[in-house]
Amino acid sequence: MRYGAPMRKLYHFWISPACRKVRLTLNEKGLKYDLAVEKSWERRDGLLSMNPAGEVPVLVDENGAILADSQAIVEYLEETYEDVPLLPKNTQERAEVRRLISWFDNKFQVEVTDNLVEEKIMKRLTRSGTPNTAAIRAGHHNIHYHLDYISYLTERRSWLAGDEFSLADISAASQISAVDYLGDVPWEQHPSAKIWYSRIKSRPTFRSLLADNLPGMPAPQHYADLDF
Amino acid sequence: MRYGAPMRKLYHFWISPACRKVRLTLNEKGLKYDLAVEKSWERRDGLLSMNPAGEVPVLVDENGAILADSQAIVEYLEETYEDVPLLPKNTQERAEVRRLISWFDNKFQVEVTDNLVEEKIMKRLTRSGTPNTAAIRAGHHNIHYHLDYISYLTERRSWLAGDEFSLADISAASQISAVDYLGDVPWEQHPSAKIWYSRIKSRPTFRSLLADNLPGMPAPQHYADLDF
Repeated sequence: MRYGAPMRKLYHFWISPACRKVRLTLNEKGLKYDLAVEKSWERRDGLLSMNPAGEVPVLVDENGAILADSQAIVEYLEETYEDVPLLPKNTQERAEVRRLISWFDNKFQVEVTDNLVEEKIMKRLTRSGTPNTAAIRAGHHNIHYHLDYISYLTERRSWLAGDEFSLADISAASQISAVDYLGDVPWEQHPSAKIWYSRIKSRPTFRSLLADNLPGMPAPQHYADLDF
Repeated sequence: MRYGAPMRKLYHFWISPACRKVRLTLNEKGLKYDLAVEKSWERRDGLLSMNPAGEVPVLVDENGAILADSQAIVEYLEETYEDVPLLPKNTQERAEVRRLISWFDNKFQVEVTDNLVEEKIMKRLTRSGTPNTAAIRAGHHNIHYHLDYISYLTERRSWLAGDEFSLADISAASQISAVDYLGDVPWEQHPSAKIWYSRIKSRPTFRSLLADNLPGMPAPQHYADLDF
């Protein structure tokens, strides 16, 4: 405990992929932080004053800087804490990492996560209606296409964007792990994607995510199992 | 004309804010390029081989690098062509620019542009159904909130993210200009936002966007008017 210096603090919600992305990035970089659970749908004034978008993640860094939006936060962390780089040096390779970050943050989020995690978990938590079965069906359909893409990439590269583990793997694993909490990832039909995810799961930096348990919605047994 | 060196080429579609963001960034940096119109909904093989997401913008740089996703492209351009910086040097200020880029690329896109440009123009072009009047009403409602935010920011800062013109202004203007092509920006109710946009419109780098005309859907007169 250091006196006088404010601790780094991440306002987050457990199942949010955007928050998981920041947690994993902090973990990979070996940066310590406190977690504060934020139910953003309650629109707390304190959250809105930190992030007018009313969303998590919000990171308050040790120097007092208040940062919002997962991509803005991880780019800031990458620029500020350079000891463990999560982007390659070469500009074309960096563009490839960022293309894949956007793929998972946006395309996977809309086509899979919104249809499964939002419908099955968030609607229940926020009491905003009953799950839309057509959306859930679409999510189950779409995830195959994304797992195929992960398999395609990792059969040709060590990690998603190239030779090195990067923010692309972090973004993808953040989405996948949220869906895996539901038990909705059809691993047996996608063995190459499963190998990639098992390598991610066994990283020490992933352990705190595997320990997550939503109140009233315990994780299925395979979620934290390294041999799933 | 240089022989032997391939020209820089941007695959785009006129009304797409993501494409406008890349065009403005190239213009601001003084980089020459050819434009190729891509109707991404036709899912041309040549497009899918450059970008598996099947989306524009795609930039092929002079060195042959193929780049997809607007944010990956502008970060690449920022790293590769440093003479005209569009991000500040300070890491906290960079995070503020990127927070606002995400605000406009994602939040404004979903809350306003998808409801207006997608419904009124893209559905007609792609023959994918009739405009959803509830969505259009939502778009007209939501735009006030975003114009208020632009006013709030520009009453306190020279430009959206701070003292300098940045990628945040480019992302915002890319969205707003697409909606303005429809005549759907209620400028008279948002004088501070209007002043900000008139400063953007008068930049020489904006001229090529103001010359845009969609076949069969000519721009309204005020669209290109600097004194609108």
